[in-house]
Amino acid sequence: MKKVTVFGGGTGSYVVLSGLKSRRLDLAAIVTMMDSGGSTGRLRDQLGVLPPGDLRQCLVALSDASTLWRELFLYRFESGDLAGHNFGNIFLSALEKVSSNYNEVIETASYVLQTKGKVIPVTFEKTHLGVTYDNGKRIIGETHIDENNPEPGVITNAFLEPKAIPNPQSLTRIAESDRFIVGPGDLYTSIIPNFLPQGIKEAMHRSPARLIYILNLMTKHGQTTDYKASHHLKDITHYVGRQPDIVIVNNAAVPTDILAWYKSHHERLVENDLISTGYQGTIVEADLVDRTKFKRSKGDKLTRSILRHDTDKLAKVLLQYI
Amino acid sequence: MKKVTVFGGGTGSYVVLSGLKSRRLDLAAIVTMMDSGGSTGRLRDQLGVLPPGDLRQCLVALSDASTLWRELFLYRFESGDLAGHNFGNIFLSALEKVSSNYNEVIETASYVLQTKGKVIPVTFEKTHLGVTYDNGKRIIGETHIDENNPEPGVITNAFLEPKAIPNPQSLTRIAESDRFIVGPGDLYTSIIPNFLPQGIKEAMHRSPARLIYILNLMTKHGQTTDYKASHHLKDITHYVGRQPDIVIVNNAAVPTDILAWYKSHHERLVENDLISTGYQGTIVEADLVDRTKFKRSKGDKLTRSILRHDTDKLAKVLLQYI
Repeated sequence: MKKVTVFGGGTGSYVVLSGLKSRRLDLAAIVTMMDSGGSTGRLRDQLGVLPPGDLRQCLVALSDASTLWRELFLYRFESGDLAGHNFGNIFLSALEKVSSNYNEVIETASYVLQTKGKVIPVTFEKTHLGVTYDNGKRIIGETHIDENNPEPGVITNAFLEPKAIPNPQSLTRIAESDRFIVGPGDLYTSIIPNFLPQGIKEAMHRSPARLIYILNLMTKHGQTTDYKASHHLKDITHYVGRQPDIVIVNNAAVPTDILAWYKSHHERLVENDLISTGYQGTIVEADLVDRTKFKRSKGDKLTRSILRHDTDKLAKVLLQYI
Repeated sequence: MKKVTVFGGGTGSYVVLSGLKSRRLDLAAIVTMMDSGGSTGRLRDQLGVLPPGDLRQCLVALSDASTLWRELFLYRFESGDLAGHNFGNIFLSALEKVSSNYNEVIETASYVLQTKGKVIPVTFEKTHLGVTYDNGKRIIGETHIDENNPEPGVITNAFLEPKAIPNPQSLTRIAESDRFIVGPGDLYTSIIPNFLPQGIKEAMHRSPARLIYILNLMTKHGQTTDYKASHHLKDITHYVGRQPDIVIVNNAAVPTDILAWYKSHHERLVENDLISTGYQGTIVEADLVDRTKFKRSKGDKLTRSILRHDTDKLAKVLLQYI
C-alpha cells in the first residue's frame, strides 16, 4: 500500500483525512503542535499540557469507531466551568497527565477511536510559533497570529520560540513516504509550523516522494492577506524545502453572500495566477467547494470560516494523483 | 454464579466492588443518583446532566482495563477552568450529551473500562435528596446534608424531591439477586437514597435473598451524629424494608491520632451495641481497617475522611457469607 502522509492540523486536515480514510492507503498525519488558541490554548496554559486540538481533529478524522465516539470527541461544552472546552481536548489532556509519555497518549486515543492510520505529532516539545512582518513587527503565539489579527503586512519569517527538535517518528515517516499532501489550512498557523522543527525541511528535501499541495480557497487576514496562488506556492516552497509537484485548485464559483461575509473580514478568494507566474508543475483544477455552511457551536468562541473543501470531491481528485 | 448486588455509591462501594470484582460472582452495583456536591454537583447544575460521580466510582471499581484507564477515570484536574473536576465525571457528562439515552452512556463507559459486572443507576430521574430533623429542620440537596453540616439533631425522615420512579433494571436485578450487600458509606447520603425511589423498598421486602449489612467505621456529623450500631440498623431496616440477616462489624483498634482528627470533626467510632439491644441476626466481627491514610488531591475541595475499610480484608469476610 502506498504510504501517504498528510501535513497540517485543524479543519483542513480533517477534510483530507476523512476523505482518504476508507481507501486502501497507508495513511499518516503529521500534525502541528503549536496551537495556542481557544480551548486548546487554555488547557495548554492552565495545565501545562501539549496542545491537543489539532491532534484530536486528526484522530477523529481517521476514526473508524461508532458515530457516538466521534461525536463525543468533537463535543464542545456550552455552559459552566467547561464552557468552550472540547471533550476530545480534555480527554487528551487528562491522558497526558496519567501517561508516562506522549506516545502512550496517542496509542490510547487511537485505540479507543479505532483510527485507521497514524497520527504523528511533529514535535513533543513545548514551543510557540512566531512570525515577523515586513514592517519589522513580531508576533509570538499561534492564537495572536491566527485570531482577529489586524496586521496588514506581509510575513517575511516564521520561526519557533524556542527552537524544537522533531518527534523522531515524523522524520522516519517522511523518509518512508510515497506521497506527501500539504494543506489546505491556514498557511502560517496550520501548515508551515509542521516544517519548522529542526531537520524536517531537510528530510522533505531529500525525499523523492511526490508532493501534492492543496491551495486554500480563501485568503486569511493577518497571515495571507491578499495572497494569490503564487504567493502561497513561494512560501510553501521556502518552508517545505521543495516546490510542490502538483497543485490542486478549486475552480467552482462561490456564492456571493459567502464572499460578502469574507469581504467584511478583509478576506477573499485566492486568485489562481500559477500559469502567468510560470509554475512548471501540474495544476489540477476542479469543483472542490463544500456548499454546506459550517455551523459554529454556541460555546465556541473562535470565529470559524464558513467555506470548506468538500471531503468527497477532494478525495476523488487526490486519488488520481496518489 | 451467585447474583450479588451491592447498594451504595462513593468510596464505600468502591472498596466492596474492588474486592469482589475478581471473584466468580455475577456482580452488580445499584448506585445512588442523588449526589449534588463537588465536581458532580457543578456538572449537574451547569450542564443539566445526571450526577456522574457515584457511577464513575463503581465503574472504575469494576474495571478490568489497564491501570492507565482506571487512573484516567479517577484523575482530578488541579488547576485552571477544570480545577476540581474529575475526568471520569466529565467523560460521563459529555457522553450523556451525545447519547440517545442513559443506558448508552453506561454501556459505552462499561465497554471502555471493561467492567466485570453491571452498574445500574437506581433512577434516571433528576431528583434531590431531602431530610427532616427531629427539631423540624428540613434540608434539601445531598451536598448540604453531607458537607460541613452543623446540624446536631437526629434525622427522622429522608425523601426525594421530587419523587422518582426507579430504573426498571434496578427492580429486575433486585428480583433476581441471591445476595444483597448494603454499605459501607454515609448512611443518609450514599446508602438510603438507593431505597427511596418508588417500589424499591417493596422489591427488597419481597426478595428472599440474604441481606448483608456492612456497618460504618465512624459516625458522620450531621447525619449519623452519635449513632451506635443499633441506630444504623434501625434506619436500614426502616428504609430497606427488611432487617439485615448479617451485620459485618470492625473490631480492630484505630490509631489515636486518627480518632483525634475525627473528634475534632465531632465524629467517633461506631459503638457495637447489637447484642445488648437484642439484634437476633448474625454478627461478624473482624479486623477490617485499611491502615493507609487516604490522601486528598490538591484540586479536590471536598473533605474526605481518612479511615477506610480494607478491600481485601472485607472481601475475605464477605465471601464467607455470599
